[in-house]
Amino acid sequence: MDNFEFYNPTRIVFGKGAIARLSELAPKKKRILITYGGGSIKHNGVYEQVMQALSGFEVFEFGGIEPNPLYETLMKAVKLVKTNDIEFLLSVGGGSVLDGTKFIAAAVCLPDDVDPWGILTHETPVTEAMPLASVLTLPATGSESNPNSVVSRAATNEKLSFAADAVYPVFSILDPEVTYTLPLDQVRNGIVDAYVHVMEQYLTYPHDAPLQDRQAEAILQTTIEVAAKAMQTPPDYRARAAYMWNATQALNMLINRGVPQDWATHGIGHELTAFYGVAHAESLALVEPALMRHQKETKRAKLLQYAQRVWQLDITDEDAAIEQAIQKTEDFYHSIGMPTRLSDYNIDAEEAAAKVEARFAKRGTKLGEHGQVDAQAAAEILRMAA
Amino acid sequence: MDNFEFYNPTRIVFGKGAIARLSELAPKKKRILITYGGGSIKHNGVYEQVMQALSGFEVFEFGGIEPNPLYETLMKAVKLVKTNDIEFLLSVGGGSVLDGTKFIAAAVCLPDDVDPWGILTHETPVTEAMPLASVLTLPATGSESNPNSVVSRAATNEKLSFAADAVYPVFSILDPEVTYTLPLDQVRNGIVDAYVHVMEQYLTYPHDAPLQDRQAEAILQTTIEVAAKAMQTPPDYRARAAYMWNATQALNMLINRGVPQDWATHGIGHELTAFYGVAHAESLALVEPALMRHQKETKRAKLLQYAQRVWQLDITDEDAAIEQAIQKTEDFYHSIGMPTRLSDYNIDAEEAAAKVEARFAKRGTKLGEHGQVDAQAAAEILRMAA
Repeated sequence: MDNFEFYNPTRIVFGKGAIARLSELAPKKKRILITYGGGSIKHNGVYEQVMQALSGFEVFEFGGIEPNPLYETLMKAVKLVKTNDIEFLLSVGGGSVLDGTKFIAAAVCLPDDVDPWGILTHETPVTEAMPLASVLTLPATGSESNPNSVVSRAATNEKLSFAADAVYPVFSILDPEVTYTLPLDQVRNGIVDAYVHVMEQYLTYPHDAPLQDRQAEAILQTTIEVAAKAMQTPPDYRARAAYMWNATQALNMLINRGVPQDWATHGIGHELTAFYGVAHAESLALVEPALMRHQKETKRAKLLQYAQRVWQLDITDEDAAIEQAIQKTEDFYHSIGMPTRLSDYNIDAEEAAAKVEARFAKRGTKLGEHGQVDAQAAAEILRMAA
Repeated sequence: MDNFEFYNPTRIVFGKGAIARLSELAPKKKRILITYGGGSIKHNGVYEQVMQALSGFEVFEFGGIEPNPLYETLMKAVKLVKTNDIEFLLSVGGGSVLDGTKFIAAAVCLPDDVDPWGILTHETPVTEAMPLASVLTLPATGSESNPNSVVSRAATNEKLSFAADAVYPVFSILDPEVTYTLPLDQVRNGIVDAYVHVMEQYLTYPHDAPLQDRQAEAILQTTIEVAAKAMQTPPDYRARAAYMWNATQALNMLINRGVPQDWATHGIGHELTAFYGVAHAESLALVEPALMRHQKETKRAKLLQYAQRVWQLDITDEDAAIEQAIQKTEDFYHSIGMPTRLSDYNIDAEEAAAKVEARFAKRGTKLGEHGQVDAQAAAEILRMAA
């Protein structure tokens, strides 16, 4: 286990009817900006619940934050915040709205002569941000309880990220009933997103961190256990609650303390989203099983541990156990309707491999816990996902 | 799963050499009071490391905080804080020093006409406290990352507790190497303390909180896995690090969110400590196996889950599996030299049962997740621990 720091000051307010708690949690006498996305909150009752809880507060609105939030959009919000002397930001939506709101919170604190894009290129360190909070509507990214934000720029076709303690939400409200109106493919995506988040932080190599390993396995096993029920109609509160809490715990800076991390599945997946428009979670399910097969030797010890502890497989025949564990992962994704092959999307694997290889080669990209996933490896992985 | 709030703002700084980080973590230009216990920190190098990191700071000292910290002692510190305009408290020690420091932090913020004892009788709610932090020397209580404090009063022979968000340490420094000079029976006690903390929050009845269950099991399994190595001489860094992180995670308000809790083992154990002077962890190991046997029916579903998941037992014969799981728990305690029977301390079980029964009857004590452990049940449990 390496030396580490753990810090997560976000107050989670979890459960039925939790949005009503906004009336006591929101700061009194502050000018509040509500940020949201495409407007689904205006049809599913969330907006009404929020506005009812905030009656008596001075509330402004900024809608239209996209999935994969755009710098260009967010800079409009930055202007609105400055013009209206906003003092507190409340994200009402999923991870994209919240990531965007984190960027707004950091950008509004910069002096006028500093380019906010520097936050994302890491030229401008974020030491200060406007206080922000969230009402979460889509459990998936973990943004409600972490310091991370991913922002895209349309003009340059870039997708960059930053992390800063200053943008941890002051509080996040998680009401599982809010997920009842989600399309089932978004629930499916959220389940896979959370699962792969854990795998990125877990499936590397043994590093004398037995508790972090078991805490990761706890989330994986719980996700497997509740996924089918979480996909049921009519929605089952207990399963939705477990799914929602799982997604938060999957990326809240706990299971990755003092251990190596991978994130190659995300790195390759982002390119599939960029080139072919597959959703983020869909891209992860495409890459991850192939990556496990390709990295079978590098990840051998952890794959065996995964096979034994998560899937309860007999590991006498090690290679068979590893293949079985990977197959069970694919079967799990299939069981909730998530495809794992490029052909399922009519994507030509050779073409995808060539495109990603060219881009990674140009950038000198090296992903994975040892930097072992380079352009050639990424291409091989994509061919294996044919 | 019930509705819940999760909030834990303590920054954990974990690893080799972490005490040196004090120089950046401690607040600049504030008058700092270091609190400690019997003075072991002056012999094991911790005091020197702390003072070296704080060179240039204005530092005051208050030593002599007892195990089971006394109100009378702590009130002397309250006076010292007020006299010297102290602005920040730094606990250097184990859970008792830290619990005492939390009380000091709350008490100094009360108006002069309010009796600080009211904090512990809960007549005086704690909404404000002086900022405090800790350098942990004994992993066991979890106080380094929770809002809890237990304080005793010699004059009235009372032992009471309070909890308040305001007394979460701002930061806690955990250097596993600091544990190298601990007597092995204190390591043993810390291991058992952490294990029983988890059991109190886990071994109740199923409550649709699958992740909390598995996170609890993760700590139990890790504790079992690392205990023997953590007891080795010369000390093994990896095992001590895992033990230390385990103890923090065992009582940091995470695994008990939205679920019922027990704490009857602690309630009965406190009386054994009061009557016979056995150490806190020793009392827990005496009570817990007997309590599991006595509460076999009430806790049946969770005992079976515990048998299956933590001890990997076949549960076809349910009663046999439950008894085996309890026996394995006792065997685990014995394996690190922790006794589980009153006779091991030459305590007469009948006498202990009579004393505790009388006290509980007088107070109307009802412990356990259903309030099912009354005076008579406590007596029966102690007879089973003969």
